[in-house]
Amino acid sequence: MKLPILRVEPADIPDYALVCGDPFRAEKIAGKLEDARELAFAREYRTFVGKYNGARLAVVSHGVGSPGAAVCFEELARAGVRTVIRVGTAGSLTPEYPAGSLIVSTAAVREEGLTKQLVPPGFPAVADSAVTEALYREAVALGGGPVGKGITATFDAFFTGVVDLPHDAYAKAGVLAVEMEIAALYVIASLRGMRAGAIVALDGDADTVDEAYDPHRNIVAEAVEREIEAALRAIASLAAADAAAE
Amino acid sequence: MKLPILRVEPADIPDYALVCGDPFRAEKIAGKLEDARELAFAREYRTFVGKYNGARLAVVSHGVGSPGAAVCFEELARAGVRTVIRVGTAGSLTPEYPAGSLIVSTAAVREEGLTKQLVPPGFPAVADSAVTEALYREAVALGGGPVGKGITATFDAFFTGVVDLPHDAYAKAGVLAVEMEIAALYVIASLRGMRAGAIVALDGDADTVDEAYDPHRNIVAEAVEREIEAALRAIASLAAADAAAE
Amino acid sequence: MKLPILRVEPADIPDYALVCGDPFRAEKIAGKLEDARELAFAREYRTFVGKYNGARLAVVSHGVGSPGAAVCFEELARAGVRTVIRVGTAGSLTPEYPAGSLIVSTAAVREEGLTKQLVPPGFPAVADSAVTEALYREAVALGGGPVGKGITATFDAFFTGVVDLPHDAYAKAGVLAVEMEIAALYVIASLRGMRAGAIVALDGDADTVDEAYDPHRNIVAEAVEREIEAALRAIASLAAADAAAE
Amino acid sequence: MKLPILRVEPADIPDYALVCGDPFRAEKIAGKLEDARELAFAREYRTFVGKYNGARLAVVSHGVGSPGAAVCFEELARAGVRTVIRVGTAGSLTPEYPAGSLIVSTAAVREEGLTKQLVPPGFPAVADSAVTEALYREAVALGGGPVGKGITATFDAFFTGVVDLPHDAYAKAGVLAVEMEIAALYVIASLRGMRAGAIVALDGDADTVDEAYDPHRNIVAEAVEREIEAALRAIASLAAADAAAE
Amino acid sequence: MKLPILRVEPADIPDYALVCGDPFRAEKIAGKLEDARELAFAREYRTFVGKYNGARLAVVSHGVGSPGAAVCFEELARAGVRTVIRVGTAGSLTPEYPAGSLIVSTAAVREEGLTKQLVPPGFPAVADSAVTEALYREAVALGGGPVGKGITATFDAFFTGVVDLPHDAYAKAGVLAVEMEIAALYVIASLRGMRAGAIVALDGDADTVDEAYDPHRNIVAEAVEREIEAALRAIASLAAADAAAE
Amino acid sequence: MKLPILRVEPADIPDYALVCGDPFRAEKIAGKLEDARELAFAREYRTFVGKYNGARLAVVSHGVGSPGAAVCFEELARAGVRTVIRVGTAGSLTPEYPAGSLIVSTAAVREEGLTKQLVPPGFPAVADSAVTEALYREAVALGGGPVGKGITATFDAFFTGVVDLPHDAYAKAGVLAVEMEIAALYVIASLRGMRAGAIVALDGDADTVDEAYDPHRNIVAEAVEREIEAALRAIASLAAADAAAE
Repeated sequence: MKLPILRVEPADIPDYALVCGDPFRAEKIAGKLEDARELAFAREYRTFVGKYNGARLAVVSHGVGSPGAAVCFEELARAGVRTVIRVGTAGSLTPEYPAGSLIVSTAAVREEGLTKQLVPPGFPAVADSAVTEALYREAVALGGGPVGKGITATFDAFFTGVVDLPHDAYAKAGVLAVEMEIAALYVIASLRGMRAGAIVALDGDADTVDEAYDPHRNIVAEAVEREIEAALRAIASLAAADAAAE
Repeated sequence: MKLPILRVEPADIPDYALVCGDPFRAEKIAGKLEDARELAFAREYRTFVGKYNGARLAVVSHGVGSPGAAVCFEELARAGVRTVIRVGTAGSLTPEYPAGSLIVSTAAVREEGLTKQLVPPGFPAVADSAVTEALYREAVALGGGPVGKGITATFDAFFTGVVDLPHDAYAKAGVLAVEMEIAALYVIASLRGMRAGAIVALDGDADTVDEAYDPHRNIVAEAVEREIEAALRAIASLAAADAAAE
Repeated sequence: MKLPILRVEPADIPDYALVCGDPFRAEKIAGKLEDARELAFAREYRTFVGKYNGARLAVVSHGVGSPGAAVCFEELARAGVRTVIRVGTAGSLTPEYPAGSLIVSTAAVREEGLTKQLVPPGFPAVADSAVTEALYREAVALGGGPVGKGITATFDAFFTGVVDLPHDAYAKAGVLAVEMEIAALYVIASLRGMRAGAIVALDGDADTVDEAYDPHRNIVAEAVEREIEAALRAIASLAAADAAAE
Repeated sequence: MKLPILRVEPADIPDYALVCGDPFRAEKIAGKLEDARELAFAREYRTFVGKYNGARLAVVSHGVGSPGAAVCFEELARAGVRTVIRVGTAGSLTPEYPAGSLIVSTAAVREEGLTKQLVPPGFPAVADSAVTEALYREAVALGGGPVGKGITATFDAFFTGVVDLPHDAYAKAGVLAVEMEIAALYVIASLRGMRAGAIVALDGDADTVDEAYDPHRNIVAEAVEREIEAALRAIASLAAADAAAE
Repeated sequence: MKLPILRVEPADIPDYALVCGDPFRAEKIAGKLEDARELAFAREYRTFVGKYNGARLAVVSHGVGSPGAAVCFEELARAGVRTVIRVGTAGSLTPEYPAGSLIVSTAAVREEGLTKQLVPPGFPAVADSAVTEALYREAVALGGGPVGKGITATFDAFFTGVVDLPHDAYAKAGVLAVEMEIAALYVIASLRGMRAGAIVALDGDADTVDEAYDPHRNIVAEAVEREIEAALRAIASLAAADAAAE
Repeated sequence: MKLPILRVEPADIPDYALVCGDPFRAEKIAGKLEDARELAFAREYRTFVGKYNGARLAVVSHGVGSPGAAVCFEELARAGVRTVIRVGTAGSLTPEYPAGSLIVSTAAVREEGLTKQLVPPGFPAVADSAVTEALYREAVALGGGPVGKGITATFDAFFTGVVDLPHDAYAKAGVLAVEMEIAALYVIASLRGMRAGAIVALDGDADTVDEAYDPHRNIVAEAVEREIEAALRAIASLAAADAAAE
């Protein structure tokens, strides 16, 4: 039976998955695979499979925000995926890493509502260290811009309302970047026995979103290219290591 | 300048909007309009404009979950939309309204994280009564199945984790249905000066989602058809009343 | 058996009730009824019955604050009341509606403790739209001062302590007025199957209460007269519509 | 200028006050004073002054529930009251103290919303020990039934909704009784520099309120008589000690 | 069987205990007893027994912080201790009581995590009034510096992070001092049927801890001497009163 | 100037520290070092320095519970420590890892109050991956019993009160063990720029603590020996890698 939301057969999904928010970015990433094939495009969830450096993987879009992305992550887990890497964009919380930098997320602040409905509030949203190390190593090896490694924050609100978001407190606590889905990925991965990691390209200062947000600049586009490359290489390297370990 | 996420020119967006989660459902709804035209398909946000019974409106998909849908609602507000109606599917909390029923949502339980980052927790997520009355009147007039009117609940989690969701408490409190975006719509509409309403087609019992969820059944498809019809007629009737009032 | 707190026989209570905080205001309101009769004056709960424009109704005082008022609303529900309208005074949160204005409350911010012990925190405190429309129509028809319609906030604290009340955030979110019982009324009405609405006369700026609060000014007294008149007419009109619908 | 809600001149209020919920009970208590005089009956707030065993005191009713009672306590503080004792009724949490027992409250569980808007949640609602000791000594000396001393709990909800009240947890933690205003009294007394204490007559099991609540039984009435007597004597004894200390 | 953490035989523990944070201070206090004997020094828990003015008591160190101190208090309760007094140091929240003053704690703000895992958040952390009165009387009788009586606050954080501690709000609410274990003592005493009290020597302004904290000044050392003397005398006096009452 | 609580000169503290709860265990660990020297024993904080396989390190006891341990961790950071490893004991949450197993903690559930006063609640308490990998590798290499790697939980309450601890929810979420200080260590390390890791020896089922807790069994003692050995080797290996990287 097909997965009810992704509309793909579980058996068609490999053990490794690369996920991103945008269905059209998923298509671009799939363009880098050998034998790429689109399995479904249902709601915002677009699923491709193919090979990269010998590793079979799925490329799947999860849409914007943790609740919708969670549906994707849960169905991937049910389909048997064991390793997931998210690539995405994020706002910067520190001048040390300006737009165009890459950040490998070691753990995520849970400033979203989805994970509160899955686990008690004290539970850590934490990446798998082997995935993190592979992502960081590949991103650094690629060069082309600053690469950081550290804690990122996942929020639900992109535009602000009448209450302040605690960006300052998190910046003071050393959090590097703000985005909208990583905490969901890490908590679901912990619950369902998957290894997860994430790398984000910074598209500007997290606190100027309301005014002059432009995620379509050149420097951001290039960083996105680099993170995709790093993520694909990380999956290939993890798959090779897994195969060697068997 | 184009809206940064929807990628449409604000000036191209009419005062009325019909929103739904699924970009492919948006396409089907647009098929019911005269002079329908697709403006953009960016991420999960697909935007059409056209006319229905003399009223110009946009049909826009907002994706799954409140944080992603909020981006859509906020940009529609910035584009000048003054009346928004959401059509969608929801799980039933009461045997009185089984799968295939329609529910017009008068207000929404805020069991999601997005609105907590916009307004303090006590703020009510409430529909506009004129929109609600128009939706209810049109849905009842269409016939074809039960139509309820009352409070619905918006949750972030679709699949459950290790903590229980308070479905039972809300069912005892008279909440009729559970879905994932209405609270975001109502709170943002209050903040940005829009009138909002929502109608949902019930696709089964809210508590059996994890086991045998199938939103693709015939009875649900027919209810979705009816709610789309009711929503389009409601918009036409509200637009006519607004025009008469000027 | 008499209701344990109100000390009246349930059978003596009609389907419609007008409630206000002050037992002496209840007496004045009862003076506007035909065949008015005082049933009880127990604690702060004073109960009258009578007729207005053909409709039989009770006029009952509920005292100051949600916990005490809740006792009144719950016993009225047990006595079979199906429609309740509260008239009261409130502090203004916006210069658009100064002292002497009337506000019809469509929904209430739950900044009080009582409803947290009845329903989970996300539950909306929302008026019945038919009652709201009747109140608004009658208040506008009466003229004599500005009439607003929108969200009001219910707080527990009248005088402030050492923590700030979030009046500013709610004002920015478009909340029109602050008082002490409407959220309790709306939540209990939802739980017990009653229709409820509320209209309040503004008696000054919500944030100057600690300094120069004077709810006994002329302009306020006149607004209270108008809201009582509007509420009585709304009940008569709702009762007539209900009778016609049977 | 008169106190805005109690409608009495501050100068007419003595340093000692006995407060109770019910304006008609206040009248009965005033009947036990020499030179009793009614100053005002505004809303649920009825104010008497008189003398008992040489001590001048006010007897004031505060109505049902913490938010309304807080208005009374705050205005008494502004009028210069330095010592307040509350007499009231409460539900029992332990078979050790059945209906008809008296409990002197040493501190109160803050299960109400009012004090959360005055002080941070960790602040203790605690009686003055001299007042507590005087109340306990006088109540024991009067005889006629069991007298306990310990922690009581203040709740906002009298009738229950769809969420459970944590009566069991508090009973296990040794809390003796449940009522609706003491936490407000103790916190406000701490903030405004008053000494406060409270004694309650148990009127039945706290958990049978919804079914067969009857606070009008003989055994309860007798306990109320005893607590009033004990409270008056405690005030007289405290006033005598204060006078001696000057 | 020995207590698992304190590593002493329950039978060796008398009914009265004096507790302090520091195992080396416990040793100094034991030096003031007749027939002092060290029973154990396990982790930070050092236990002595001896006599003071005819009363047999234990002197036990509980370490820094509520969670660790709670282990000590719980095992003392299991060993049969019925009366516990804590002596310690605290930061001042008011210029009225500068460094070198003594404060007898009547109740404690629960700004620590330990008691939240024992009792619901509204539960008051309150001293026994007989213990409090004995401590206050003895401290005042000793002279040598200011002695206050009132509410103290128990926090978990000694050094601050990126969020502000609500010292100001508590200072405005009249809280006199800040330390790290009293709330744990009072809540556990309530749960386990012990009488508890506490006296603290102020070692400086609570808000300068991060900069120039020096708890080793002369004026503080003298105040600590006085509070130990007062606590020992209070225990002796309570024990004498208990013996007389039997 | 000496550190105010640890009472040691910052200059005497090396870059690497091994911390444990018990001052007497710290002494035993110091016995395994070359040139071991005791710097101070102040309160529960006992500090040794020495060498292990060429690496200079401090061995410091932090006492029981996060608030007290935090004081130690903060002062170590101020003294310039850059790498900290905690060894300790913990209760098991899964039959997969019974008493005598070792768990390397990758991240910690924040069920304690201390970190809530340092950072907002969503912040993750996460280990440094290099430290974690070194600890895991050394522990596995030592053999002698099961070695797990995963999330642990930090609680404040050792003995339970009247509210249930959410052990079951965390066990279902895959948490391996329960102890009392790791979350404090990880959060403070993130705030102060230290690398941190932790390894714990399981001393029994986390839920039988109240009944038959015995942390002094042979199998536990042997596991503690192994974790100390693993931690010392991990520090030596990290120090060697750091030296090589310079």
